[in-house]
Amino acid sequence: MVEYRLLGNINSPADVKALPFEELDALCAEIRTELIRVVSKNGGHLASNLGTVELTVALHRVFDSPNDQIVWDVGHQSYTHKLLTGRREQFSTIRLEGGLSGFPKSRESEHDAFIAGHSSTSISAAAGLAKAKQLNGDPHRVIAIAGDGALTGGMIYEGLNNAGRACKNLIVILNDNKMSISHNVGALARYLTLIRSKPRYFKLKDDTMALLSKLPLVGNPLKKAAYWLKRKLKAAIYSSNLFEDLGFDYLGPIDGHDLTSLCDVLSRAATLQKPAFIHVRTVKGKGYPYAELDPAAFHGTPQFDVATGNPEVEDGDSFSQAFGEELCRMAQEDSHICAVTAAMKYGTGLQMFAASYRDRFFDVGIAEEHAVTFCAGLSAGGYRPVFAVYSSFLQRAYDQLLHDVSIENNRIVLCIDRAGVVGADGETHQGLYDVSFLTSIPGIHILAPSTFAELRACLRYGVYDCPRTCAVRYPKGGEPERALTYTQYDATQFGLLSQRADTLFISYGRAADAFVPLQEALGKQADFLKLVRLYPFPEGLVQRLLHYRRIVFVEESAQNGSIGEHLLRELNGLGYRGAFFHRALGNEFLPQSSVKTIFQEYGLDAASLLRDWEGDVFHAD
Amino acid sequence: MVEYRLLGNINSPADVKALPFEELDALCAEIRTELIRVVSKNGGHLASNLGTVELTVALHRVFDSPNDQIVWDVGHQSYTHKLLTGRREQFSTIRLEGGLSGFPKSRESEHDAFIAGHSSTSISAAAGLAKAKQLNGDPHRVIAIAGDGALTGGMIYEGLNNAGRACKNLIVILNDNKMSISHNVGALARYLTLIRSKPRYFKLKDDTMALLSKLPLVGNPLKKAAYWLKRKLKAAIYSSNLFEDLGFDYLGPIDGHDLTSLCDVLSRAATLQKPAFIHVRTVKGKGYPYAELDPAAFHGTPQFDVATGNPEVEDGDSFSQAFGEELCRMAQEDSHICAVTAAMKYGTGLQMFAASYRDRFFDVGIAEEHAVTFCAGLSAGGYRPVFAVYSSFLQRAYDQLLHDVSIENNRIVLCIDRAGVVGADGETHQGLYDVSFLTSIPGIHILAPSTFAELRACLRYGVYDCPRTCAVRYPKGGEPERALTYTQYDATQFGLLSQRADTLFISYGRAADAFVPLQEALGKQADFLKLVRLYPFPEGLVQRLLHYRRIVFVEESAQNGSIGEHLLRELNGLGYRGAFFHRALGNEFLPQSSVKTIFQEYGLDAASLLRDWEGDVFHAD
Repeated sequence: MVEYRLLGNINSPADVKALPFEELDALCAEIRTELIRVVSKNGGHLASNLGTVELTVALHRVFDSPNDQIVWDVGHQSYTHKLLTGRREQFSTIRLEGGLSGFPKSRESEHDAFIAGHSSTSISAAAGLAKAKQLNGDPHRVIAIAGDGALTGGMIYEGLNNAGRACKNLIVILNDNKMSISHNVGALARYLTLIRSKPRYFKLKDDTMALLSKLPLVGNPLKKAAYWLKRKLKAAIYSSNLFEDLGFDYLGPIDGHDLTSLCDVLSRAATLQKPAFIHVRTVKGKGYPYAELDPAAFHGTPQFDVATGNPEVEDGDSFSQAFGEELCRMAQEDSHICAVTAAMKYGTGLQMFAASYRDRFFDVGIAEEHAVTFCAGLSAGGYRPVFAVYSSFLQRAYDQLLHDVSIENNRIVLCIDRAGVVGADGETHQGLYDVSFLTSIPGIHILAPSTFAELRACLRYGVYDCPRTCAVRYPKGGEPERALTYTQYDATQFGLLSQRADTLFISYGRAADAFVPLQEALGKQADFLKLVRLYPFPEGLVQRLLHYRRIVFVEESAQNGSIGEHLLRELNGLGYRGAFFHRALGNEFLPQSSVKTIFQEYGLDAASLLRDWEGDVFHAD
Repeated sequence: MVEYRLLGNINSPADVKALPFEELDALCAEIRTELIRVVSKNGGHLASNLGTVELTVALHRVFDSPNDQIVWDVGHQSYTHKLLTGRREQFSTIRLEGGLSGFPKSRESEHDAFIAGHSSTSISAAAGLAKAKQLNGDPHRVIAIAGDGALTGGMIYEGLNNAGRACKNLIVILNDNKMSISHNVGALARYLTLIRSKPRYFKLKDDTMALLSKLPLVGNPLKKAAYWLKRKLKAAIYSSNLFEDLGFDYLGPIDGHDLTSLCDVLSRAATLQKPAFIHVRTVKGKGYPYAELDPAAFHGTPQFDVATGNPEVEDGDSFSQAFGEELCRMAQEDSHICAVTAAMKYGTGLQMFAASYRDRFFDVGIAEEHAVTFCAGLSAGGYRPVFAVYSSFLQRAYDQLLHDVSIENNRIVLCIDRAGVVGADGETHQGLYDVSFLTSIPGIHILAPSTFAELRACLRYGVYDCPRTCAVRYPKGGEPERALTYTQYDATQFGLLSQRADTLFISYGRAADAFVPLQEALGKQADFLKLVRLYPFPEGLVQRLLHYRRIVFVEESAQNGSIGEHLLRELNGLGYRGAFFHRALGNEFLPQSSVKTIFQEYGLDAASLLRDWEGDVFHAD
């Protein structure tokens, strides 16, 4: 632990309140140093957290957490909050196995009022907490901090629509940094720019009303017109923005790095008997020049060198990059290919496509529901939309995939990045459910490449040959150094390495990497099947498995609704009576941990499988 | 077919265009007669369709479908559209087995540009279609008709945010009838009331600008103030509502039953080089006094008597009603119970709760995502929220159930109505996926009562005893006349009728009704198990099944991710080697049809099971 003169003595929000006001800027500087130090070592969300330092200090200065409850939207802006609420000493464990979560987590601290890893949830959750306080007669406040693109997600409007007027003890703070994860998109971003440029709002109101009261009414014909104008103008000033229309008292915009203004406006909001909406302008990456210059690069960052801002580990080729390059190649030949992202242009590898095919590239903001149905519309209009999305975020669009895409077969291609275990982001971001929820929808085809070459084949198959919507899922990171050489192989169907053994190992995607050492150890004792097309099963495949005396199915997916389950049902339906062993990732949430650790824990890695083989765990009567 | 002087000759939109304008009101009257006649026989959505007669006639008068594409939001307002687009003669088959769908369906007609059974999808789909036209160089327009509460769903804002300014060939029509399915809720409804009361908007603009240009500037000190006022007012007039802020040209509000105004404003919108937003006021139920008086009752109606407006079939007690009554009883004893609905107060049986416990009742509009996360907030605040929702609509909240509810175990109770086959509403409304998507989420418990008594027990268990979020699912309609008497029985666990046979039939919910005749026919040849708690399996249950030589599992659910699949996996894991037969509803979409027909088709009914028993289909080697 580095020694900090001020931060070193902050063990709870009370200590923030006890500091002299003029020390707060120095505290903020220390917090920034600590944020940069730890994130440069652990990786994590840097730029958003640098932007909310003063805001968080002001919140804990004015409000009384945990009696007042603070709900962070897209919780990756909550690092300073963690530092100030008794977690300073564990802060260097953030995102590590067994360490602090990179997101709010109520099991971690009573100061984390609500979980938040996905966007646009804060107002709904805060409305529930605020309503509970109202019903309880508890006079404390609930403060939701939205921002970082949360306004591009539809759920926030459902929240605003229901919370405005109804929740008098609710304060919504919009952390407006002009960026979602990269740049904010859409009409609302422009709208914010418009109101952002106005002077401090409550000041304007006071001035205007003073001016109006002084305006003389000269002569009779003018009187009526002037009166009408005054009335109109009053209405325009007093209810002229979206948030006031939705029933909130609007305060702002406020400089989010000026502690005096922040404390002032928060105190004012705390006295209102109405829901308040505070518009705070912040600079993403504030205080670290490299992050201010390129906030997108420092949104979620790997370890980096503080002095130069350069990432310490060169990332190497990734599936995301391989996908982006292939899609560009395809788009050059085919003007009907479109690419859609929900605020993840860089994360999904679409930056080159965006630059080269601007009119066919659509960043819709953090709006997965719209993204899917928009793709369905493009498809119905004769185009070939490819939606690149993280597995965890695709969960948002389950109904749209079922209702808008699948019933009438408006064929789209889903490129599902971060499928499987995600590591440091933990529970809220695991990509473990896509196989289950996608196979529950009639008609969706699912492919899982293990190599870049397979990814390219899958993408072309999905765009051109697949008769239905095609989901291509791949993990974060790159391809394995070695893969088995299958004797029978079709890149989009399956590969079978048959030694005519009576045991068959089956897997797909990253989990199939374990087959290389396994095959070396087992030799002719086992056959190996790697699925690329997961579902529906390749024609005739299930029939071909009936003669095995035992089958070991290994997959990187939650257990219920997994491919192994579906295969067992189909085998059973065809009269299979051999032994069937299923290794999957269980039916519980998986905390932050390395992929390696989780694979070991659930016995998906080669060493565990070999150990269990030798221990006769896969015993067939 | 009744004879209609005008409607009888309308076989395509061209025939609507060919009519003299002064005949259009008479055409509308004939359409209303036909709507009332057919819906009174088939049941269906009456009130919404009576409200959009003139609007639909005007659309086909001004635009050129299918070159111009019409996208209906919540497609139950599209009956007139079906009558005018070549489906007049089949119209009396609407919602019947093999007949016209009660929703737009592109496989049914080229005039149905996009499917719509769920709410708030129209702008996203239309944006995709419009973008495809832009890329194609096709000068035609895409018209989305939102309304009927679609504005309470967050997805519509994702659509508006992305479509405004970007889609110059898009026209959005807001069909504002002050109702969602019952009354519109939330701040936006109030906002609409505000702008609804203004005079015709484009007229106002012209007048105001004329007035402003005439306003004299008297003297120097006033000059600056007046100039400033003019500038402010101009901004207020020209960009003073949400829809203009989002980049649309706002036109309205228009009387939606005045054909002259409608054709006028549609023609005007068609010439704009900008996305247009037309605000149309309609009266839900227009032209049928009973429906105008009580539009909620005629939203979705069973068969009724045209002369009196009375439903022809008395509904009898339903699960919805039994749920509503029990929840009221519980709420009287326990002030921490809250009820939440997404615009389905009547459909889910919450009207009595709403009247009796107003401060603990929340109708959030068609906003299932918000509903779930709001419940999670109430739960985190110490309350006991019960969200009553149709199975099909809960699909919208998959991510919220996983992320906001389950990871941190913010325990809520889901009362899932219309679970299973829904009959006349067809593909878009089937409640066949909840078992699959809920079991894919770690920690959710699922119960399925077959009787009202079981429903009451399940509800109390869910609220008080279940350690996790509890989903209680039940079908539309009532309980069976007869149920098996089980020797071993726990209402929230399972019932087993054991005759010490070597065959076991297992089922749950409505499908278990088949066991009564089956048991009478089979006597001691089979045992019968009815699950009430579906998942996780009751402790020790799976062990107790291992000795059976064959198991026949019958369930009213899609196949992938079903309870039968999970049970087979668990049985297999414990070494079960008997025969396992699984009857479920397949992995395809099910069209409108009676519950009886679908049960027969998939062999879930007693007669099919008996036939297959006798035909030795359930042969155990």
